[in-house]
Amino acid sequence: MCGIIGVTNHPDAARLAYLGLYALQHRGQESAGIVAVDGHGQPRFHKGMGLVSDVFTEDRLAALTGSTAVGHTRYSTAGASTLLNSQPVNVRYKNGTLVLAHNGNLVNDAEVRRELVHEGAIFASTMDSETIVHLIARSPHDDPEAQIRGALAQVEGAYSLIIAVDQELYAVVDARGFRPLMLGKVGDGVVVTSESCALDIVGARIACELEPGSFVRIRGSEITYLDPLPPKAPTRCVFELVYFSRPDSQIFGESVDQFRRNLGRRLAEEHPATGADCVIAVPDSSNSAALGFSEASGVPFELGLIRNHYVGRTFIHPVQAGRDTKVKIKYNPVREVLQGKSVVVVDDSIVRGTTSPGLVTMLRQAGAREVHFRVASPPTIGSCYYGIDTPHPAELIASSHTVEEIRQYLGADTLGYLSLDGMVHASAGDPQRFCHACFSGAYPTALPSETAKHRFETQP
Amino acid sequence: MCGIIGVTNHPDAARLAYLGLYALQHRGQESAGIVAVDGHGQPRFHKGMGLVSDVFTEDRLAALTGSTAVGHTRYSTAGASTLLNSQPVNVRYKNGTLVLAHNGNLVNDAEVRRELVHEGAIFASTMDSETIVHLIARSPHDDPEAQIRGALAQVEGAYSLIIAVDQELYAVVDARGFRPLMLGKVGDGVVVTSESCALDIVGARIACELEPGSFVRIRGSEITYLDPLPPKAPTRCVFELVYFSRPDSQIFGESVDQFRRNLGRRLAEEHPATGADCVIAVPDSSNSAALGFSEASGVPFELGLIRNHYVGRTFIHPVQAGRDTKVKIKYNPVREVLQGKSVVVVDDSIVRGTTSPGLVTMLRQAGAREVHFRVASPPTIGSCYYGIDTPHPAELIASSHTVEEIRQYLGADTLGYLSLDGMVHASAGDPQRFCHACFSGAYPTALPSETAKHRFETQP
Amino acid sequence: MCGIIGVTNHPDAARLAYLGLYALQHRGQESAGIVAVDGHGQPRFHKGMGLVSDVFTEDRLAALTGSTAVGHTRYSTAGASTLLNSQPVNVRYKNGTLVLAHNGNLVNDAEVRRELVHEGAIFASTMDSETIVHLIARSPHDDPEAQIRGALAQVEGAYSLIIAVDQELYAVVDARGFRPLMLGKVGDGVVVTSESCALDIVGARIACELEPGSFVRIRGSEITYLDPLPPKAPTRCVFELVYFSRPDSQIFGESVDQFRRNLGRRLAEEHPATGADCVIAVPDSSNSAALGFSEASGVPFELGLIRNHYVGRTFIHPVQAGRDTKVKIKYNPVREVLQGKSVVVVDDSIVRGTTSPGLVTMLRQAGAREVHFRVASPPTIGSCYYGIDTPHPAELIASSHTVEEIRQYLGADTLGYLSLDGMVHASAGDPQRFCHACFSGAYPTALPSETAKHRFETQP
Amino acid sequence: MCGIIGVTNHPDAARLAYLGLYALQHRGQESAGIVAVDGHGQPRFHKGMGLVSDVFTEDRLAALTGSTAVGHTRYSTAGASTLLNSQPVNVRYKNGTLVLAHNGNLVNDAEVRRELVHEGAIFASTMDSETIVHLIARSPHDDPEAQIRGALAQVEGAYSLIIAVDQELYAVVDARGFRPLMLGKVGDGVVVTSESCALDIVGARIACELEPGSFVRIRGSEITYLDPLPPKAPTRCVFELVYFSRPDSQIFGESVDQFRRNLGRRLAEEHPATGADCVIAVPDSSNSAALGFSEASGVPFELGLIRNHYVGRTFIHPVQAGRDTKVKIKYNPVREVLQGKSVVVVDDSIVRGTTSPGLVTMLRQAGAREVHFRVASPPTIGSCYYGIDTPHPAELIASSHTVEEIRQYLGADTLGYLSLDGMVHASAGDPQRFCHACFSGAYPTALPSETAKHRFETQP
Repeated sequence: MCGIIGVTNHPDAARLAYLGLYALQHRGQESAGIVAVDGHGQPRFHKGMGLVSDVFTEDRLAALTGSTAVGHTRYSTAGASTLLNSQPVNVRYKNGTLVLAHNGNLVNDAEVRRELVHEGAIFASTMDSETIVHLIARSPHDDPEAQIRGALAQVEGAYSLIIAVDQELYAVVDARGFRPLMLGKVGDGVVVTSESCALDIVGARIACELEPGSFVRIRGSEITYLDPLPPKAPTRCVFELVYFSRPDSQIFGESVDQFRRNLGRRLAEEHPATGADCVIAVPDSSNSAALGFSEASGVPFELGLIRNHYVGRTFIHPVQAGRDTKVKIKYNPVREVLQGKSVVVVDDSIVRGTTSPGLVTMLRQAGAREVHFRVASPPTIGSCYYGIDTPHPAELIASSHTVEEIRQYLGADTLGYLSLDGMVHASAGDPQRFCHACFSGAYPTALPSETAKHRFETQP
Repeated sequence: MCGIIGVTNHPDAARLAYLGLYALQHRGQESAGIVAVDGHGQPRFHKGMGLVSDVFTEDRLAALTGSTAVGHTRYSTAGASTLLNSQPVNVRYKNGTLVLAHNGNLVNDAEVRRELVHEGAIFASTMDSETIVHLIARSPHDDPEAQIRGALAQVEGAYSLIIAVDQELYAVVDARGFRPLMLGKVGDGVVVTSESCALDIVGARIACELEPGSFVRIRGSEITYLDPLPPKAPTRCVFELVYFSRPDSQIFGESVDQFRRNLGRRLAEEHPATGADCVIAVPDSSNSAALGFSEASGVPFELGLIRNHYVGRTFIHPVQAGRDTKVKIKYNPVREVLQGKSVVVVDDSIVRGTTSPGLVTMLRQAGAREVHFRVASPPTIGSCYYGIDTPHPAELIASSHTVEEIRQYLGADTLGYLSLDGMVHASAGDPQRFCHACFSGAYPTALPSETAKHRFETQP
Repeated sequence: MCGIIGVTNHPDAARLAYLGLYALQHRGQESAGIVAVDGHGQPRFHKGMGLVSDVFTEDRLAALTGSTAVGHTRYSTAGASTLLNSQPVNVRYKNGTLVLAHNGNLVNDAEVRRELVHEGAIFASTMDSETIVHLIARSPHDDPEAQIRGALAQVEGAYSLIIAVDQELYAVVDARGFRPLMLGKVGDGVVVTSESCALDIVGARIACELEPGSFVRIRGSEITYLDPLPPKAPTRCVFELVYFSRPDSQIFGESVDQFRRNLGRRLAEEHPATGADCVIAVPDSSNSAALGFSEASGVPFELGLIRNHYVGRTFIHPVQAGRDTKVKIKYNPVREVLQGKSVVVVDDSIVRGTTSPGLVTMLRQAGAREVHFRVASPPTIGSCYYGIDTPHPAELIASSHTVEEIRQYLGADTLGYLSLDGMVHASAGDPQRFCHACFSGAYPTALPSETAKHRFETQP
Repeated sequence: MCGIIGVTNHPDAARLAYLGLYALQHRGQESAGIVAVDGHGQPRFHKGMGLVSDVFTEDRLAALTGSTAVGHTRYSTAGASTLLNSQPVNVRYKNGTLVLAHNGNLVNDAEVRRELVHEGAIFASTMDSETIVHLIARSPHDDPEAQIRGALAQVEGAYSLIIAVDQELYAVVDARGFRPLMLGKVGDGVVVTSESCALDIVGARIACELEPGSFVRIRGSEITYLDPLPPKAPTRCVFELVYFSRPDSQIFGESVDQFRRNLGRRLAEEHPATGADCVIAVPDSSNSAALGFSEASGVPFELGLIRNHYVGRTFIHPVQAGRDTKVKIKYNPVREVLQGKSVVVVDDSIVRGTTSPGLVTMLRQAGAREVHFRVASPPTIGSCYYGIDTPHPAELIASSHTVEEIRQYLGADTLGYLSLDGMVHASAGDPQRFCHACFSGAYPTALPSETAKHRFETQP
């Protein structure tokens, strides 16, 4: 997954991009990069492995002069080539400097890339984003708009893109609108970014959200809505709302926090926990859902788990650690809250199922009499080919186990998943506009060829 | 402030110390150190600036062999000499290897040190803990117990100490018991540490808490309660319960979480917020108090602020940041929760008052109609000479401003502080047993001489 | 300047490349890189800023599996983009993995690049080497030999190239043969590299030197001499023999050490120092010439200057340093050798002239009675466009000063430069086969366009 | 071994110390430290593992304010405790700040330390220098001179000391004068340091050398020669002249370069190499001796080996390296010089004998017809207890092998060592004034007790 931001017409563009990436850190913690472009089209960049606040220093930011900047933060795979694969992509092409940041994944990258290579293109990375760059550079057109439009006509899949051609900024969302993209203004400057929380932190006000198929050009402070891409049925990624985005963001026209409250309320209706003493969240991603559950069920909300703030990158796990030690390192249970209680614990989703059993054990050790596990989404059964790093189905516990088997594995007294219908109806908008393939198996596009799929499934 | 841990009679002593320090990280983030001692009395150590999980690596931990280990994590001052001042102190003296970890501060250090220096002692650091080490080494006695007892007879102030003499461990708490010290067992091993949360994480069960004046020796798995220090009226640090300790810990014979709930309940009684729509906490330290406030007032608890997990060490603040930007970097307000609401925000304490105005601004920008600030402790008016890094009174907003002036400064609609009486009665135990000098000015000991005070106030 | 190496058909290819780069370190100290290719065409690489021995660790080398490896060490410009410009270039193209290491500079890069960009090529770096890679990838041919041959037909300038297409290695030297390239064998393995000293260190025996225009393909252990490039008059870079290459190397069919001895002998004939007490070298590059001078003149050779081995990267120069301090940091004068003596000091060349005055001062301070400066090459008057980082003519002292003016500037008693004729006749081979443009202004190719020249002159 | 420097009464004291340590780098490459003291007696320091130029940065030096500074560079043992053992020692004692830098080793440290510990002293390191600090601090006297004098009366062994008490500097050399100490002046400033080369680099002129037993106090620019220590027969370390010091230094009243020339001349007389074609040095430590050999024998001096400048700290040796590979990494043989020749190779000493066989092999591979090995000192048979890191006798090849056996082991055609008598008569002064225990076994002091000896022999 990735977080992206573009800033233009602002004297402090790189600094705003930095702040914005910091607010988008939850979308990718492996690498971060910013490319700034000055009035001569000269790009300056810095990229590095790690958190935004570790990658950049005052000196490095100060060197990124220019009133246009594009930033990217990425969850990526391990290995020597990772920095090579970090974004934004930054090249020279016939119209000048081209900088591109991409959130999403193409499903026909293998085919397009094969053709490009046949025609003499060289690839420095394995990113599908580089494919888009080649298609733009090879366009017979002279105008960036036409070049980008032509390029996107050849690819299929999920893409929210921010592209700088010298200091001109373009923002596009694929016609199905898998990933969010928000447009904001700060003084004379314009900001495009994945979530509204990145607008908030730079003091920008939300101008609008880019609808599926939107194509926007920003020259100076002038924003032009270009002709949209050929329309398709929208399939907004429901997992953005369920888990990925920040609760203080607004995306897809609704509040993430409110959506999650509704998940919790509906979960309480579908799987009540009659007689429970309290409801606790697995902090922080499940907080809103747990509050909603509490509200709908009348069972009081408690802070029974505290998230540890100091988990460093090199935490050394003890050799003879029990199955609850890794959980203990992440969360602290509050014994006074749990002692002797029948506890409802609300989590946003269960993917591999590796953490949850330790969590249940920890709660019981802290005195919980009963543990009722509630999941604010349906069982996760499929991989995502549109940009989320879901593991291979073989690693998804729900792809091969019944709910009862999972309950036993977790060691919970009861287990309840929200239904697919319940999930999509948590939306304040049209419940039909979502992609929920990872829960339902209903993929809205053709899938990548077998070989290319392999890449998705082994290199999340 | 500091967190300390001692482990003995355990094959994995340094690893347990590491895990324990990790759980005590909130007590000091500037430096961390572990000294392990093997069966030959040979010490091996590693110390470094930064978080526990950054200071230690697998290789470094593996090199710390020996079944006894003492660890320390410290909030310390900046500058070149910091690593020199890091603990545990580790020297050779006549009985062999001496390792000492100290939580607290002596108030007569200047006088004792002056005398020691006069007698030919050399000091490598400015830590009062080194003074104790000299006193032990210079004792005419041959037995560590007598040496330690004699040394402590000469010092005045706050000290919870863990001392290893070769592989024998000693644990002492000053007669007033300012700082906590817990004793636990894991298999045949014994663990002594600042808070019970560090016992939990290593899988140890609580054996007992060391009462004020307790003096314990641990040889192998044998725990001997030595004669206590000459008794004094106990003055447990109330700020440990109000703010410093972890809510999942038990110290001073009570649950930190429950104490804070009571603070919140009493705060609601003393300063109700009639007509408010919701209660929110400044996460995470005020969560329990806010829940207590909600419970007692009937105003619903909401998660209106989310703490950011990714604040790195080198975060670069924007040049033209408004007074709310630093707050935005730390907290994210959830607009949906706050929009149009009359909000009660509960904080544990106001020290300098530098963060709170930005917080109020941020809440208003996120839509809060009214902001009612409630503080779960009395106004902070005095420095601490017993180990907490309170700034000089001149920097304490409440030392020179009335509550109404502070309210105006914060920009809050109303402001209410808990009373001193309300605070100490939040305890499940004797409300008379606390030191609350920073709130009341009632210091239980003579104060350091003027020169020495200077050290406290400029170099906390 | 750069040092390059290719190894194939050897189980330890990356390690041999590492050793070879270490021996070529004098050819470039700014960055180093190795790309290894395994039997599946999978490349693995590591690049970094700094010395070979700092860039690589055991772990990093061990990860570079594959029996083919290409290495590069580079003297490069400062700034954020440097790592981006480091070599070897490593891309995927239609025939698979393409790895290229280049020593030299193209003079028509600007024109060719402009055309490529027009056709849709994207450039990730400002290196002319990337231009060659594009030309290869865009070739209509299917065979690497034809692709490379076609690419080189379009470029003009200096290039010694090592190219891997999957595990097949190609080595080419431009038709004028500016830069050296040696071929060696070690067991079943084949090594191609800039200087014979890199063969020595890996235990390879010299198979042959690649003549101007040579084009070689290595498949496994099979070496095929392909048709040479269209012939041109050879112009071997004389500065490689005068200064750049290592004295224990053989290049251009002769011994570097012997060539330099001859320089010294001829210098003694042209500019004798009758009555001098001793001859000293500016170590280590002038050692051979000074020995030759001593031999021809009969003036005894002495070690009057010792080179300091510990000059680190971050050496901090004193604020009030005199003009001899920087020299003192690099060299130590031996007072006993110099005291009261008339000293001949032999240097290989004077480029900017910034070091030499301090050297003369230092020798006089160490007691030298007379200092006779002798330079084993003619005055340096022109920039190099073929790969050597000569500064802009405005910075070359001899481009604007007479020999007498330079003598006064140095503060030497006498100053003598070797003649152009004397220099080229130091060769054991044909004295007509050299490029000596930096000494004579006689450039063997068209020069880069004015804009492109700018790049050479400001970013050496 | 160590290099030490003290500077006082100079506004740039720490910078001069830095430059001086850089010039003394050959005396210790493992750690470096500088302590500066300002007019209030406030010390500021920086120490680190590694080379002087790596340990210090501009920022770190700039922070070392104060017109007095003491520096130390150390060859030390590996392991976690190394930084702890780095110098200068820097403590507070009754007279204020005490900073001490020590070159040499005490032989009765174990006994004195035992007594100190018995009296209540605590030791933070295993350095004998800390013992001296304790003795000074515990002196009943109030005056630093008397304190130091009293302390030194209790220790036996080798010590050249630089001590700062606040801004007052003391310099002492033990009565036997094992290690050198030079006094110089730069403007109003005074510099004391191990070798004259450190005076040269800071632009100081030599004032005098401290004779055995000298005791000097420097207050501001005033230098006072205090009463010397009780006299003993001088035993200057001959190995300082043979190998350790820099050839451009003057120590013990003579030129290191001239001493080594004489070694070479006498070696040529004792072990001529009739019929040899050339003499080469093992650079750089044997250069002077080889020139002397050439001069006396009439065999021409050649530069047949070139020392590699780029050996980094983490050089990775190839897995299947032959016995000459390590030598190849350090030296490059010049084939043209060696081809077909009968070569005399002059080395300063043979200690373990591990490098020499590879050297002989390398020379033969480079074409040498005959290799005549000449050593400019006698066989090394004993450990040093006075500050040089000679290995345990079991590792000294000459302690258990005859010269003929060593010759065979080296693979040389002939081997000749200089005689003890020849070595000491190379001196321009009294040949009786040397310690040559490592060559002769004649130790001038009682030796350390067996246990303490162990420390010398395993942890040099």
